[in-house]
Amino acid sequence: MMRRGLLLVVSGPSGVGKGTICKALMKLREDIVLSVSMTTRAPRVGETEGVNYFFTDHKTFESMIQNGELLEFAKVYDNYYGTPKAFVMEQLEKGMDVLLEIDIQGALKVKEQYPEGVFIFILPPTMEELRNRIVGRGTETPEAIDKRFTAAYNEIDLMENYNYFIFNDRVDLATTRLISIIEAERLRIRPKFVKTLIREIKEEY
Amino acid sequence: MMRRGLLLVVSGPSGVGKGTICKALMKLREDIVLSVSMTTRAPRVGETEGVNYFFTDHKTFESMIQNGELLEFAKVYDNYYGTPKAFVMEQLEKGMDVLLEIDIQGALKVKEQYPEGVFIFILPPTMEELRNRIVGRGTETPEAIDKRFTAAYNEIDLMENYNYFIFNDRVDLATTRLISIIEAERLRIRPKFVKTLIREIKEEY
Repeated sequence: MMRRGLLLVVSGPSGVGKGTICKALMKLREDIVLSVSMTTRAPRVGETEGVNYFFTDHKTFESMIQNGELLEFAKVYDNYYGTPKAFVMEQLEKGMDVLLEIDIQGALKVKEQYPEGVFIFILPPTMEELRNRIVGRGTETPEAIDKRFTAAYNEIDLMENYNYFIFNDRVDLATTRLISIIEAERLRIRPKFVKTLIREIKEEY
Repeated sequence: MMRRGLLLVVSGPSGVGKGTICKALMKLREDIVLSVSMTTRAPRVGETEGVNYFFTDHKTFESMIQNGELLEFAKVYDNYYGTPKAFVMEQLEKGMDVLLEIDIQGALKVKEQYPEGVFIFILPPTMEELRNRIVGRGTETPEAIDKRFTAAYNEIDLMENYNYFIFNDRVDLATTRLISIIEAERLRIRPKFVKTLIREIKEEY
């Protein structure tokens, strides 16, 4: 039976550990494709084209914006970051599930263009712990920490736009929860495809 | 965090093995309560009140129908079978997940009264295999087998009213799929409860 792949959007406030969970998932599962972002910033030492990012120039990126070739994008300081649509759509049409790890603003833009995606909100075990994690990075001034924490605190409200929540109390548990969500979504009856599914079940007889 | 329990309705055509899957699940999981049906038929040898069925008389059953105290019921020959509502609702309010194994007509009646339930359709691995299983019971005439198979074949169309489908190719795999669905549904963001969830996450800080 041919099914369309799932777009799995893993998102949450900065500092909740969504990257760690996605890495753990990708190590466990070979049946999921990771979406690679595109950026105009220069590659850093050790970064590989098509693995960490697709690297491109401003002119190309801006023409992709114009042509609607990005699922979402953002400008951070002087550089663009975005998700090329074509790669994701090709994989979904081949029946592959695609994992997209992305911040909340990006996830909400993806939802506008692809509402049938599975939107998963990663939560810190507690808000206290999230503050500790932001502090623990040790790279920021107290003002910057406060600003980052307040942003994360306010972003929790946006989880009402999501389909699932996962508390990241332990990476292994959070990854197991993510796998359950993926397994269940593969078994979900989607009104758009149920007639085809029924026909396929019956045709074989 | 206090959450309302899930009503897990496991259903499908006769012969697909939904009872076997539910038994396997109940052996593995102590955090799920099995809904017990009520009937007016006499207990058979070895059947225990409150385990296999709640046994009652016609008068009591009919007054329960009148008072809307059943989630669903059916009359089979001269006896009533039904699902008492109070037990299910009490468990759900306590935050317990309740498993209801039921035929398709019953499941659709439950859905009318409790659309927020999780409706899971068990499918045979193939229609051919379903016919073999019906034949394999060896208790029925060719005409009865045909009738039962045709009914099952037509009932497949009703899966569009369900949330999930599970192919019962192997009982252990089917049970694992059911567990994934339950784990995922526990993590689902329900519009009705998301404000409470957000408030609880934030209040602790």
